Amino acid sequence: MTTQTEQPTRSAPPQRADYAHFDQLPTRWADNDQYGHMNNVIHYALFDTAISNWQMSKGIFDATGKLSRMVVVESGCIYHGEAGYPDLIHVGLRLGHLGRSSWRYDLALFRNDDDIAFASGFFAQVNVDAASGRPAPLDQAACAALLTLQMA
Amino acid sequence: MTTQTEQPTRSAPPQRADYAHFDQLPTRWADNDQYGHMNNVIHYALFDTAISNWQMSKGIFDATGKLSRMVVVESGCIYHGEAGYPDLIHVGLRLGHLGRSSWRYDLALFRNDDDIAFASGFFAQVNVDAASGRPAPLDQAACAALLTLQMA
Amino acid sequence: MTTQTEQPTRSAPPQRADYAHFDQLPTRWADNDQYGHMNNVIHYALFDTAISNWQMSKGIFDATGKLSRMVVVESGCIYHGEAGYPDLIHVGLRLGHLGRSSWRYDLALFRNDDDIAFASGFFAQVNVDAASGRPAPLDQAACAALLTLQMA
Amino acid sequence: MTTQTEQPTRSAPPQRADYAHFDQLPTRWADNDQYGHMNNVIHYALFDTAISNWQMSKGIFDATGKLSRMVVVESGCIYHGEAGYPDLIHVGLRLGHLGRSSWRYDLALFRNDDDIAFASGFFAQVNVDAASGRPAPLDQAACAALLTLQMA
Repeated sequence: MTTQTEQPTRSAPPQRADYAHFDQLPTRWADNDQYGHMNNVIHYALFDTAISNWQMSKGIFDATGKLSRMVVVESGCIYHGEAGYPDLIHVGLRLGHLGRSSWRYDLALFRNDDDIAFASGFFAQVNVDAASGRPAPLDQAACAALLTLQMA
Repeated sequence: MTTQTEQPTRSAPPQRADYAHFDQLPTRWADNDQYGHMNNVIHYALFDTAISNWQMSKGIFDATGKLSRMVVVESGCIYHGEAGYPDLIHVGLRLGHLGRSSWRYDLALFRNDDDIAFASGFFAQVNVDAASGRPAPLDQAACAALLTLQMA
Repeated sequence: MTTQTEQPTRSAPPQRADYAHFDQLPTRWADNDQYGHMNNVIHYALFDTAISNWQMSKGIFDATGKLSRMVVVESGCIYHGEAGYPDLIHVGLRLGHLGRSSWRYDLALFRNDDDIAFASGFFAQVNVDAASGRPAPLDQAACAALLTLQMA
Repeated sequence: MTTQTEQPTRSAPPQRADYAHFDQLPTRWADNDQYGHMNNVIHYALFDTAISNWQMSKGIFDATGKLSRMVVVESGCIYHGEAGYPDLIHVGLRLGHLGRSSWRYDLALFRNDDDIAFASGFFAQVNVDAASGRPAPLDQAACAALLTLQMA
């Protein structure tokens, strides 16, 4: 039986102190599926939005995608527990890896005032030139912004 | 800089011959985001639905969740290329791992008639007793069904 | 050519002063479609969530749906203008109609600090007994809560 | 108590014979909300997609939105009954109204092999010049295509 990616070792869910930046995103009624909890797909929509929010707040995100695009090349999520509407989700963000044209955000989701995450994951992105579709080095401003998310 | 999960080695995108079962899922207009391609979150919605469809076709899925629930404990996706509305997505499915109460599906997404996947990923699930919320061994029927997804 | 519903007369978009209660809901990156604005479907997700939030805050909403369900029997939206991620949407809510077992919310969506709505709409709901599936009269607490949304 | 739109008279749900064109759209697992049925918002996503599919099949839809955009100016839905995952939804489409730069689609949703719709609604669209953002007359090809959806 071949495996595309290695089976990860289950680790303890992270805490708020493990993250550099936080965003608060409310849930929507339809985020809950038939099981009465947030559908597993919504976790990624929250990751996606927290990252976009942060990038826009730093001025490093061309949302029109006309010059360059920050494209997701890999993502993943470990589900430690449950949450769902009407919870307010606190999204923790930190830098996981920084390369020349690619980097990785590590994220976690906290339910209301919980200090222990109910989910943790990552988004690996690459900066792509909109015209050529090829990876393009991150400029200095973007690198500097990303480094503010680095944990000691 | 700590990393929650290992940075995966980028591998070649899989082909149709690497999967045991296929489902065809059309895209919806709003699956495309502002970049004009399928938003990275939709890939998971397609994984989720193809798995649910397959489980229901095998009669091993209690969609009401009253007796037992097949809960996602981890998921991930590698984005090899682009697709989006109005593409018809072919979802490939195979068994990645089978334990006593948990297992993993490996999946890939193929755009229209493409033989090379534009995305590949996995869903790790655990069977949970609805009353206790604790992992419960898979019954024989479920194991037998899952083994039909095993590649040689 | 038969028409299912009458073609509404286009009216001026409402203002904040026309609504009794407000909720603030942030947009998500994937709310925007390929046209770079909030997809027309998202307006309903925001209506749906603002109503659920309000109902929960008044304690008149059995989110589990085990006793009774507040089911949507009709909805509609007029799109006066555009909005989208990263806008913060202010949802205005007022009572449009109150019957024995059914009622209607009138809603409007305001973009950030705008005083003129970019969308206005309604949700007509009926209270349904979860066991019988039949309309059931609203209890006094629910009626009293709804009447707080009535404009002079 | 002012009302933005008139309270519609509840009419009998339409049948398949009332529509000129049909599309088949499968449901997704997460289309169901906590109540175990298709969330009221999904109906609009199915309308939206069936219309886009039809427009693309007729070659009258510039999905890039660079030249002109067919923008939704009003939509509505009456919910006659329930449906949801794993149902296959058949979407019925007909022309409701045709003007110079605007028109209305009337739609209905049928669950699997049902002949009676569980939902009916409409999408009013206007053709907008992408550069000026102003309404622009429909060209002859688009008018001719729309008229094929007219019921006797």
